[in-house]
Amino acid sequence: MTQKAFQDFYPDHMAYCYGCGRLNEQGHQIKSYWDGEESVCHFQPKPYHIAIPGYVYGGLLASLIDCHGTGTAAAAAYRAEGRVMDSEPPVRFLTASLQVHYLKPTPLGIPLEVRGKVREVKGRKVVIEEWIVAGDEVTVRGEVVAVQVPEELVQELLQDKK
Amino acid sequence: MTQKAFQDFYPDHMAYCYGCGRLNEQGHQIKSYWDGEESVCHFQPKPYHIAIPGYVYGGLLASLIDCHGTGTAAAAAYRAEGRVMDSEPPVRFLTASLQVHYLKPTPLGIPLEVRGKVREVKGRKVVIEEWIVAGDEVTVRGEVVAVQVPEELVQELLQDKK
Repeated sequence: MTQKAFQDFYPDHMAYCYGCGRLNEQGHQIKSYWDGEESVCHFQPKPYHIAIPGYVYGGLLASLIDCHGTGTAAAAAYRAEGRVMDSEPPVRFLTASLQVHYLKPTPLGIPLEVRGKVREVKGRKVVIEEWIVAGDEVTVRGEVVAVQVPEELVQELLQDKK
Repeated sequence: MTQKAFQDFYPDHMAYCYGCGRLNEQGHQIKSYWDGEESVCHFQPKPYHIAIPGYVYGGLLASLIDCHGTGTAAAAAYRAEGRVMDSEPPVRFLTASLQVHYLKPTPLGIPLEVRGKVREVKGRKVVIEEWIVAGDEVTVRGEVVAVQVPEELVQELLQDKK
């Protein structure tokens, strides 16, 4: 796929996330794209991402829901304004809350498809509904509440840590 | 600490979880213990577990809530019957759902304390309330709904994957 993923537009200081940052060499580096009104991300868990042998552990599935959700929230905010994702002023989202329902065990060893849909936009809050498909079964459903934070707050947080 | 953790009692086939399995060499290998009526787990995130630089990524925090929650659910079930955790018949829990509220950014570089409390036991369902403390601040609150599954179902799942 030559199309740029949502995460490829993140500025460097937002690109170290273990779940989705293209600059985090140890991380998952997920890539999310629009597919019509839904967003989609494909991810192949590593053989050691085990819950019980043969199945994917819940923490990874939660991470996929989390990072694909904030990515979709950011992409949706830019799209609503008809802008590309690296245009000014910047739009940044952080996760306020995360909900994950494990409907059935997710088999390990096959690529997973994470899908998302914008369910609600309310001021700075965006709710993304998501689901994970393994083979042809939906094994996980989840929801991310992402909150838009001013770039100044992001810079303040980074500054506090220097 | 020479006391055995909840996870040290898991039988081998339940001990490969990336979050809490003592036999998963790449995993987090969390260790949970009773501390009075609460359960507690200490965990030091790795330098690459980044959200934005200086802060812990949400997926790891969700994993800690998940695995510490199912561990606490299992320990609580054994304790309710006055049994040690490797006694027969076995009691196994899987996560049915997970909820995580990120109250404020969690600083990276210091050990985290994950605490849990049994909030509800309803048939095979146990609800564990949890929170994560970084320094002296609660940065995350969460809840795990764990469901007891018969050992035969666990064996069936393992069998399906061979």
